[in-house]
Amino acid sequence: MPTVTPVEYEDASPEVREVYDDFHRLRGDTDIPEYWKAIAHHPQSLKRAWTQFRDVMQPGALDTLTKEMIYLAVSATNRCDFCVEAHTNLARKLGMTEQMLGELMEVVALANGLNAYGVGYQVRPSDLARTSKK
Amino acid sequence: MPTVTPVEYEDASPEVREVYDDFHRLRGDTDIPEYWKAIAHHPQSLKRAWTQFRDVMQPGALDTLTKEMIYLAVSATNRCDFCVEAHTNLARKLGMTEQMLGELMEVVALANGLNAYGVGYQVRPSDLARTSKK
Amino acid sequence: MPTVTPVEYEDASPEVREVYDDFHRLRGDTDIPEYWKAIAHHPQSLKRAWTQFRDVMQPGALDTLTKEMIYLAVSATNRCDFCVEAHTNLARKLGMTEQMLGELMEVVALANGLNAYGVGYQVRPSDLARTSKK
Amino acid sequence: MPTVTPVEYEDASPEVREVYDDFHRLRGDTDIPEYWKAIAHHPQSLKRAWTQFRDVMQPGALDTLTKEMIYLAVSATNRCDFCVEAHTNLARKLGMTEQMLGELMEVVALANGLNAYGVGYQVRPSDLARTSKK
Amino acid sequence: MPTVTPVEYEDASPEVREVYDDFHRLRGDTDIPEYWKAIAHHPQSLKRAWTQFRDVMQPGALDTLTKEMIYLAVSATNRCDFCVEAHTNLARKLGMTEQMLGELMEVVALANGLNAYGVGYQVRPSDLARTSKK
Amino acid sequence: MPTVTPVEYEDASPEVREVYDDFHRLRGDTDIPEYWKAIAHHPQSLKRAWTQFRDVMQPGALDTLTKEMIYLAVSATNRCDFCVEAHTNLARKLGMTEQMLGELMEVVALANGLNAYGVGYQVRPSDLARTSKK
Repeated sequence: MPTVTPVEYEDASPEVREVYDDFHRLRGDTDIPEYWKAIAHHPQSLKRAWTQFRDVMQPGALDTLTKEMIYLAVSATNRCDFCVEAHTNLARKLGMTEQMLGELMEVVALANGLNAYGVGYQVRPSDLARTSKK
Repeated sequence: MPTVTPVEYEDASPEVREVYDDFHRLRGDTDIPEYWKAIAHHPQSLKRAWTQFRDVMQPGALDTLTKEMIYLAVSATNRCDFCVEAHTNLARKLGMTEQMLGELMEVVALANGLNAYGVGYQVRPSDLARTSKK
Repeated sequence: MPTVTPVEYEDASPEVREVYDDFHRLRGDTDIPEYWKAIAHHPQSLKRAWTQFRDVMQPGALDTLTKEMIYLAVSATNRCDFCVEAHTNLARKLGMTEQMLGELMEVVALANGLNAYGVGYQVRPSDLARTSKK
Repeated sequence: MPTVTPVEYEDASPEVREVYDDFHRLRGDTDIPEYWKAIAHHPQSLKRAWTQFRDVMQPGALDTLTKEMIYLAVSATNRCDFCVEAHTNLARKLGMTEQMLGELMEVVALANGLNAYGVGYQVRPSDLARTSKK
Repeated sequence: MPTVTPVEYEDASPEVREVYDDFHRLRGDTDIPEYWKAIAHHPQSLKRAWTQFRDVMQPGALDTLTKEMIYLAVSATNRCDFCVEAHTNLARKLGMTEQMLGELMEVVALANGLNAYGVGYQVRPSDLARTSKK
Repeated sequence: MPTVTPVEYEDASPEVREVYDDFHRLRGDTDIPEYWKAIAHHPQSLKRAWTQFRDVMQPGALDTLTKEMIYLAVSATNRCDFCVEAHTNLARKLGMTEQMLGELMEVVALANGLNAYGVGYQVRPSDLARTSKK
């Protein structure tokens, strides 16, 4: 169970309901995930977090699916169980195939592994300039 | 300076040179980054890491630029300075514009921020099912 | 279940019982959390960890509630489920209101998000000096 | 150097100048840190990040100094060099003494250390209920 | 439940079965853990990950038990619940006693705690040279 | 530069000097690293951190070199630059060869990479029991 009391629609203040309604408009008539209902215990957080999420994830130079896959990669790296589950679902709804997910996780595993060499051997950014010719 | 002695091409064993030559074939006649020269102090690591990197980053269901951007997102989340610098450069060479980088970093910042709520309020994966209708 | 066998009071060595008794003295007659009973499988760890915890969390220039909230912020950033739950409870017992928790988590989410820009764009500490006047 | 070109005041678009002016109003006539000038290469990021930072850090149930110390604790846990330096400075300007910083870092080190036991021994949140009486 | 469908032996392609058979050869006639069956949904990942795991964990200058304990230390630091459980079991099978596990976790907790001071006070690698004589 | 003023031996209080003297006794007549001189600005931290470090790193069921290598693995995973440099040096003084360092970092990179699959596919600890026979 979350550590705060989730706010249900029927008990929500007008400020919270406004966000919930916006969520429904965007996602169709699906339910409000527990994640947002937990954040809603502090209405300003809900409004700020939802507005930021909605605006940042809009298509721009990157389409929404690419953004969702980046979000999922960050969540897996951050070891956030809930976030991984939620954003795997969201990316699939936007068209991520099992093959795409497989390649995405290979890059995530690769980067997490190879990042460790960079730090483990203390390769510094300024070292980029010092390179050896064949 | 790295904590191990970087292996220069002229001092490299045939096993290491084979990887360096493969690197040159793939990237054109550029220099070997310090990162790979540091890993080369343990030749098996170099061979394994380079082969994995080369194979995983090939285009598949995801193109190489998308993979590089995912790699960069993981590196920024992992706070790996060298990795961020190197993969920002690589992604740019593959066509990432400043607008794309800007949107990529917004998603990285968003996900790092919103992941924290998920853990901070202990929203569990199994909670996904328990949702409230309007 | 923990990966080690938790040590119950009745099975505990005198060294472990001494810590458990100290815990009871400090917290009133509550139960020993599983966390400490797991660490107790290695009595030196229990003694060191408990003594450090008890001494560091004493009021000083910062009061214990502020310290508990800092502890909670670190635990949420570290994605430690058990730690988040335990220290949310402890902070509430010390007087943290729901409004305070809401603001605390907003700062945690903000910092996790904005930290990512610092690394993602490679802003270095030494860059602080190079600033632009209006 | 940052991986993006920092935006100086004289080259900034009206949208970016508006944020820079707001920064000056809030902090007095100090310079714009490189951090914000780097984010400014993507003006929407700057506006969103600055607005969120300014609003979240306002005094509420927690005062601004407590919020800054929480921010610093998160930044140290996230190993973000720039962020640690910047927020140590900001907290000092708000009244954090060396004694307070010392106690803050002791809690940060304590929590990072003791969090590791929680995960390392797999103490689960649901384990909290199963406790032993003396 | 995993976010992908685990691949059972009887439904597996020849490429996946080859890895499963290799796993059985190495570990005796034990079952395939869910971890590998999840990765198997993307057969190239399974082959790459398993081959890397098998080869890296072979005894060399470090014996396999030491390698397993290092693997466990990394997993605890990364807050990976599944990984901690699996590699605690593997290390025990290789001879890790409860006393060794206790000392291992003390080092993990110590390092996680003391690392935080290094970042929190911004002690830089180059600072190593600047030291004071008695 | 560190964010606090390092405490030199000649300016140190008797409480701090006692730790510095203990350091000299243990390590021979080498200098005090900046790390400890930074922590010394808060003498209780210095005493607690040094005592814990000294006691935990003593040989027991694990020898000191194995403990140092575990410490290094944690530091590389935590992306702590100073810590990686310092503990690479310490482990070398205790007998770690370049081959051992190479194998250590391969395990660190492997574990960081494979941990990501565990979270990325949401393999849960309780899943360990559900395995498939050949």
